[in-house]
Amino acid sequence: MNPTTVGVIGCGYWGPNLLRNFVELPDVEVVAIADLDEGRRAAMTRRYPWLVATPHYQDFFGLPIQAAVIATPPPTHYALAKDCLEHGLHVLVEKPITLNVRDAEHLNELAERQGLVLMVGHTFEYNPAVRLIKEIIASGDLGDVYYIDTVRVNLGLFQDHLNVLWDLAPHDVSILRYVLGCSPRQVSACGAACIFPDVVDLAYLYLEFPNRVIAHVHVSWLDPCKVRRITVVGSKKMLVYDDVEPVEKVRIYDKGIEKPSYTHSYADFQLSYRNGDVLIPHLKLTEPLRIECQHFVESIVNGTTPLSSGRDGLEVVRTLEMADSSLRSNGNRLLIHEQETAGGFAVSAA
Amino acid sequence: MNPTTVGVIGCGYWGPNLLRNFVELPDVEVVAIADLDEGRRAAMTRRYPWLVATPHYQDFFGLPIQAAVIATPPPTHYALAKDCLEHGLHVLVEKPITLNVRDAEHLNELAERQGLVLMVGHTFEYNPAVRLIKEIIASGDLGDVYYIDTVRVNLGLFQDHLNVLWDLAPHDVSILRYVLGCSPRQVSACGAACIFPDVVDLAYLYLEFPNRVIAHVHVSWLDPCKVRRITVVGSKKMLVYDDVEPVEKVRIYDKGIEKPSYTHSYADFQLSYRNGDVLIPHLKLTEPLRIECQHFVESIVNGTTPLSSGRDGLEVVRTLEMADSSLRSNGNRLLIHEQETAGGFAVSAA
Amino acid sequence: MNPTTVGVIGCGYWGPNLLRNFVELPDVEVVAIADLDEGRRAAMTRRYPWLVATPHYQDFFGLPIQAAVIATPPPTHYALAKDCLEHGLHVLVEKPITLNVRDAEHLNELAERQGLVLMVGHTFEYNPAVRLIKEIIASGDLGDVYYIDTVRVNLGLFQDHLNVLWDLAPHDVSILRYVLGCSPRQVSACGAACIFPDVVDLAYLYLEFPNRVIAHVHVSWLDPCKVRRITVVGSKKMLVYDDVEPVEKVRIYDKGIEKPSYTHSYADFQLSYRNGDVLIPHLKLTEPLRIECQHFVESIVNGTTPLSSGRDGLEVVRTLEMADSSLRSNGNRLLIHEQETAGGFAVSAA
Amino acid sequence: MNPTTVGVIGCGYWGPNLLRNFVELPDVEVVAIADLDEGRRAAMTRRYPWLVATPHYQDFFGLPIQAAVIATPPPTHYALAKDCLEHGLHVLVEKPITLNVRDAEHLNELAERQGLVLMVGHTFEYNPAVRLIKEIIASGDLGDVYYIDTVRVNLGLFQDHLNVLWDLAPHDVSILRYVLGCSPRQVSACGAACIFPDVVDLAYLYLEFPNRVIAHVHVSWLDPCKVRRITVVGSKKMLVYDDVEPVEKVRIYDKGIEKPSYTHSYADFQLSYRNGDVLIPHLKLTEPLRIECQHFVESIVNGTTPLSSGRDGLEVVRTLEMADSSLRSNGNRLLIHEQETAGGFAVSAA
Repeated sequence: MNPTTVGVIGCGYWGPNLLRNFVELPDVEVVAIADLDEGRRAAMTRRYPWLVATPHYQDFFGLPIQAAVIATPPPTHYALAKDCLEHGLHVLVEKPITLNVRDAEHLNELAERQGLVLMVGHTFEYNPAVRLIKEIIASGDLGDVYYIDTVRVNLGLFQDHLNVLWDLAPHDVSILRYVLGCSPRQVSACGAACIFPDVVDLAYLYLEFPNRVIAHVHVSWLDPCKVRRITVVGSKKMLVYDDVEPVEKVRIYDKGIEKPSYTHSYADFQLSYRNGDVLIPHLKLTEPLRIECQHFVESIVNGTTPLSSGRDGLEVVRTLEMADSSLRSNGNRLLIHEQETAGGFAVSAA
Repeated sequence: MNPTTVGVIGCGYWGPNLLRNFVELPDVEVVAIADLDEGRRAAMTRRYPWLVATPHYQDFFGLPIQAAVIATPPPTHYALAKDCLEHGLHVLVEKPITLNVRDAEHLNELAERQGLVLMVGHTFEYNPAVRLIKEIIASGDLGDVYYIDTVRVNLGLFQDHLNVLWDLAPHDVSILRYVLGCSPRQVSACGAACIFPDVVDLAYLYLEFPNRVIAHVHVSWLDPCKVRRITVVGSKKMLVYDDVEPVEKVRIYDKGIEKPSYTHSYADFQLSYRNGDVLIPHLKLTEPLRIECQHFVESIVNGTTPLSSGRDGLEVVRTLEMADSSLRSNGNRLLIHEQETAGGFAVSAA
Repeated sequence: MNPTTVGVIGCGYWGPNLLRNFVELPDVEVVAIADLDEGRRAAMTRRYPWLVATPHYQDFFGLPIQAAVIATPPPTHYALAKDCLEHGLHVLVEKPITLNVRDAEHLNELAERQGLVLMVGHTFEYNPAVRLIKEIIASGDLGDVYYIDTVRVNLGLFQDHLNVLWDLAPHDVSILRYVLGCSPRQVSACGAACIFPDVVDLAYLYLEFPNRVIAHVHVSWLDPCKVRRITVVGSKKMLVYDDVEPVEKVRIYDKGIEKPSYTHSYADFQLSYRNGDVLIPHLKLTEPLRIECQHFVESIVNGTTPLSSGRDGLEVVRTLEMADSSLRSNGNRLLIHEQETAGGFAVSAA
Repeated sequence: MNPTTVGVIGCGYWGPNLLRNFVELPDVEVVAIADLDEGRRAAMTRRYPWLVATPHYQDFFGLPIQAAVIATPPPTHYALAKDCLEHGLHVLVEKPITLNVRDAEHLNELAERQGLVLMVGHTFEYNPAVRLIKEIIASGDLGDVYYIDTVRVNLGLFQDHLNVLWDLAPHDVSILRYVLGCSPRQVSACGAACIFPDVVDLAYLYLEFPNRVIAHVHVSWLDPCKVRRITVVGSKKMLVYDDVEPVEKVRIYDKGIEKPSYTHSYADFQLSYRNGDVLIPHLKLTEPLRIECQHFVESIVNGTTPLSSGRDGLEVVRTLEMADSSLRSNGNRLLIHEQETAGGFAVSAA
């Protein structure tokens, strides 16, 4: 079988990681890279001297390349992905897939029309810890999920013309959708622009999912500590995923409050607390990005829809777009009208 | 000089701590305790056999008692404090001082009319860590405060007819007011009632203080981990107060983002990050409650207004009342009209 | 039934804790305290005004007191315990029971002759975490115990004429004997006297127990961090007890190295590593000292030998005495001749 | 200037890291690799397709290679380094340089005779944290160093015919020599062979340095937790280096015990404890191995003696050899006769 041929656009912060993984995958041949910066191109060809290196990604279209991997700044995602799809390339694009719903819709239509794979780099869906959490929730071990609280903060990289919501929250929204298996119905957001008047660098999202499940997302570029923490509170057990921990990432707490069988007014006198064991399941720590890259190649080879498909990317963008609206309108709670059929969405006060 | 004579009402969860501290203070004589529960009274008189123990706090009025310390469930605070003040006793009442602004206003008027000390047990204002934070902010070391994020969660004690907002958030609102030296102007709140339909056990508050300072408060009775964490982010430095740490409670991070001298569109290219030392200042770990109890006695003896006065208690209640309103109205952002003169307040959409 | 009557000698560092626990025990009456320091006596009678307080413990002999609790500096243990036993009092004495084997032998003989309870305050034998460890080892869950490593260090209280070995290591030696169910056969020790030429403030002990079980004890008064950590390494699983952790004190690691069924020279190629789950069992956190005090009273009432008997205290002293010998002789390894019959012991090079 | 040409022998565990660093260094050309395993060679040439890959390191001698980097199992170090030196190649060899003093002496003589660079991969001497510790000690900030305690344990890689002493302790001995600027004078060691009868997998070393400085080293392949911790206790301040911490690796404690100006018998009453601030200095986290590789190249180009020279490697081996002797003789304390001139050493009971 011929190897899948790949070109990588953007070799700045995240691109080299994608490049390394594709280089090391069997049955893949990385043919070329594109980056506007000469220094970055030189650094990459020093490591991988066989690569064609160009400032113009359009050069890919004249090379034997089947798939483009796009790791450029988010404002360029739409135009680059569109061009690549239009030239018949499969596309893996970093998150967020685009910066608005309309563009994401368009990319999906384009890919579907041409039978090309469109995948978005929601890396955490390929993370063994997140996959374990999904399994645990699905198994019923936690009981009904009451709420999920996520914190993703540190002293972060400010990006030009992009607020922290679009930079960090895609991770959390994609994780929430993945582990809960559904999309949020309502969202509100508040935050602050501390450093630059027009760049929100601190944000809090409140999300309502079906079945009265609540989620809260805290993202910030301005925190002195790196925190990557997700707490899932269920009616039977509770779970914490701390991604900063090098090994013991997931902890399952056999803790909870036992409700009386019927509810009456003397609530507190009837409650009992359960403080049981804590279990830290062993995780095989495969690099999530490796699994993601492999999944992209398999989707191309098998002609299947990837897990983090362009449609999933679209739904994450839909939530972020509404969150951004709420952020700009005093934190009003907004409904998210997910529409399976293509074309538009609607905003309305919740 | 004669000792100040004290009686303690309520010997359940927190009362024994107050009792112990007043017993061990010099120049104080604890005369009596009141608790409806016979077992609790017996446990206290076993430790302090000289105490008059009664189920009826009204018995205090016939004893040589100058000051009442009230550590009963919050819904009883108003009636008990009112009765004690009307009988000429100075009052130290646990937080929250009352469950609505009107009652808090009334207690303050009563105390002021009679020249009695009315103090609320905002313990954290007597905590060496919190006092250090206030000093550091005031010194300008952190630069301008951008925002304060607080988390106060664990598997908590549900209380009858009282949501988590009124149970835990008084600590955070009183700390925020104390360290910033002002009251919030706007508030919104969201949350969930996971265990009982009518008892909110998870809440998030968004607060705006003067000078564009933002605060966010996360309180929960349903978290598997005990977290007591306050992050203060300033333009020059950042600070974290972790109250769960046994010794190293406050950390000052010489970290930040240096803004360029003028703001233009290529924001990101001009920013520089500062990652400097971390300083953990030594704290003398005096029991905050001891300092609080002593302060109450001194306020009585010297006829001075205590730090956490009834008026402060009122302002905390004002914020909580508005937060509760927001919680019940889809998280709408509400203005908080603080009024220095007595009598009323107003709610309006922000 | 009449309550057991108790007097406490020494109200300095640890005595008040013993006093509080005995005061709060049912069926116990604390009658008197003895302390040379007037301030300490006053502090105690302020809390417990009914107590007879005296500088002369001999006054106990004229009071209706059945049992003496001795919490004075170790050099006084022997004389005080001897006098109390001779006057017919049951004795609970803090660790170490004495500072040499001969004295410990003598106290045991005295107690046995008179049918009095002689107990030593090896608190950790009443600690739920240590008891759990003993159970886990006994259950075989860890497999064969290979070795136990203990660390007990912090910036500590120097004591007059007493080295760190006698101050801190009694805890570890008593824990090791308790969880392994046997006494060490050999010991060597090294260390340093950093602050005062004649006071060892840092020490390392190497102990060999029966069945080739090794233990190593690190004690120091000069460490910047408080560490209280015991690691038990078994052939099947491993366990860590971290007493500084407020709640999650014991962790069981399903980790290990699988030996091949037969041993040959290509050892490494045959080994497999097991990295499994970590379990943190829930511990009911009862105060160990409460359990210890209760056990003392029960031993008196029932006429039974306590768990941490005078004989156990003697065996701990035997080990410490040999360790001290080793420390003074260049760390030579010494045999510990435990002799069930009374009278003497022998030192010899291992 | 022509680049320095390098060949790497051994591409197993550590070799690929050396290879990556030399590949990325400017003014260096990696020409070839040697490894007996075909799979490893293939993995490396997949990444760096221009490399000559051979199972026979002797092939290097026919290639334009100036320097050999040896990352093979320790028992092969001597023969490989000898052969490379004899063929006129500069040598960087992984630690320990050899498995006995005689061999290390011989390598040094060989290199010196031919004017070749002989360097040993004591990586920690190029670690910014260790360098900071050396600076802090040298500055006098800690006062006189009383003792250094090191722990380097985890579930480790057993190696064929090599005990844990030779595998892990070279790090600690080289760090100790580097930060103290001198060699130990005496050593004793104890330990256990838990898994295989003849392979010590747990060891404790006690070392005496000049000026009464004590060090203790704990190494183990059988600990459930990864610990990499060095504590330096000085007369003025104390320092902890925790290499498992991702960022905050070094903490300086302004803690200590103030001795009275003259020493008398009432030691304890005169001592005062100082519990001051903790400072976590910012560390620029450059990869130590990069600095090490660069230093090797510079030593070749400039004809200078490297920091971790063959002589330093020899001294570390001298200490380990004596420690191993002690381990096999009941932990006897042994003198280490360091001899600046070549040729032999002597063992004698301390």
